[in-house]
Amino acid sequence: MLMQRFKEGDPRALARTITLLESGQDFPEELLSLHHTAQVIGITGSPGSGKSTLTDQIIQELRSQGKTVAVIAVDPSSPFTGGAILGDRIRMARHTLDSGVFIRSLASRGALGGVSGKTLQVLRAIEAFGFDVILIETVGVGQSEVDIASIADHTVLVLTPNQGDAVQAFKAGVMEIADVFVVNKSDLPGADRVVRELHATLTLGGMLEWMPPAVKTSAQKGQGIPELLKALQDHREHLGAEGLRQRRLNRLRFELRVLLEDWAHDKLRDAENLLPEVLSGKRSLQSLFDSLF
Amino acid sequence: MLMQRFKEGDPRALARTITLLESGQDFPEELLSLHHTAQVIGITGSPGSGKSTLTDQIIQELRSQGKTVAVIAVDPSSPFTGGAILGDRIRMARHTLDSGVFIRSLASRGALGGVSGKTLQVLRAIEAFGFDVILIETVGVGQSEVDIASIADHTVLVLTPNQGDAVQAFKAGVMEIADVFVVNKSDLPGADRVVRELHATLTLGGMLEWMPPAVKTSAQKGQGIPELLKALQDHREHLGAEGLRQRRLNRLRFELRVLLEDWAHDKLRDAENLLPEVLSGKRSLQSLFDSLF
Repeated sequence: MLMQRFKEGDPRALARTITLLESGQDFPEELLSLHHTAQVIGITGSPGSGKSTLTDQIIQELRSQGKTVAVIAVDPSSPFTGGAILGDRIRMARHTLDSGVFIRSLASRGALGGVSGKTLQVLRAIEAFGFDVILIETVGVGQSEVDIASIADHTVLVLTPNQGDAVQAFKAGVMEIADVFVVNKSDLPGADRVVRELHATLTLGGMLEWMPPAVKTSAQKGQGIPELLKALQDHREHLGAEGLRQRRLNRLRFELRVLLEDWAHDKLRDAENLLPEVLSGKRSLQSLFDSLF
Repeated sequence: MLMQRFKEGDPRALARTITLLESGQDFPEELLSLHHTAQVIGITGSPGSGKSTLTDQIIQELRSQGKTVAVIAVDPSSPFTGGAILGDRIRMARHTLDSGVFIRSLASRGALGGVSGKTLQVLRAIEAFGFDVILIETVGVGQSEVDIASIADHTVLVLTPNQGDAVQAFKAGVMEIADVFVVNKSDLPGADRVVRELHATLTLGGMLEWMPPAVKTSAQKGQGIPELLKALQDHREHLGAEGLRQRRLNRLRFELRVLLEDWAHDKLRDAENLLPEVLSGKRSLQSLFDSLF
């Protein structure tokens, strides 16, 4: 019944399915046969870089092109949002009456803000539903920005003219994950300097197969959004069918790794009671390890 | 035959056993019945903080107390040292003719310099051999310093009067791992300032159950070593039997986690060839995951 409504394109059936996934239910077998493929765009950057406003503008622009859009906002500050609409998300509220837009906030994994197995299942459900584009927005701290690059077809790193941001991106080695840089709040002084610094740093790295462009935007004023979408389209053409296939394999590899890590995490918890037996010499660590399978 | 010589205390049998472990052989079942317990001391700090010279002096001091000492040096700069004697280790060479001292360099795990499953097996073998004290020296970068605190009974964090070191320790949140701070090269200006800063920072954190002392040493001049060993002894008394037991449980928990992670890593590699089948929809990710067990 639920799956029937899902297949018929009822957004409430998608919302319900996601809630069930979040509560721990298995991924519905029936959805595995739906082979829709969405364009998956990761958007990451420091808190305060204006990611949500930018996401809101991207939705607007994609809708004007007639494309359906889903947004997954991964929120490390919330222990478990369970799909609640968070502060930042309220800015996107103007899309709530548009059935071509679907927005969901999800909790991140662990203290480092990584992307959880549940988020990956939700992504699969949303993709199966048939959206044209899926935006995944994560705060660029800790693990999430590395994870997002393993999941998305294209990764957008949002910087601001604030010197600190750019320097931090250079330092932490997150530059490598960006397919497209956005210098948001580009009406503030220093935007051109950040663009120059990015170019200089990227050029230092030698000839790259793909030189990530730096697009200046002002999400607040709605400026630079078509240019950003053009840059993403350029990257998609650069990837080509084989490049996209490799990104999809990356995502599957990442999904499998998360499944394995979640499994190992559970096993470690199960084994907790047996550790004292190993300590006292009653059994070996190897036999405890073997008993976990 | 090898195990017989091992049990009789032949250091060459220990060296051979370690080489076999490094080459991928299973941990010898017979050694599991040997229930020697060593005092395990982790020593970590930035490159250039003088850890190796300090380790050398600690060996000397422990030997003068009649204790046998083994050193495991975990080296992230080397892809696989296979027990070779590295540059820094040469300083310890004066102990090579002393059968109460055993020194081994081991490769670290991955780019972050974590402690590998092999290192843990070597630690177990050395402990089974019957040394009184085992020193594990790691370069305090990336993962190794966190790992070491999961393994050792006592963790020593080596700083220098160089402002940068201390600030970095405060920043990176590695202070929490230290049971004892060493301010090495304390004949350089600024040593007292670092000690004061440490005290101030630790006091800011409120009343701690154990206030890690900061011991000034000059490893080069052989100064402060008895004070360091006294501080370690104080920490051991603070831990008591139950505290030590908890540290040992921590180590087992860590060993089990590494076993699980290594297993998952291997499985992920095995699954690589099957990912295209998932991508093309021939099988589900879940069925691939299930097939790994």
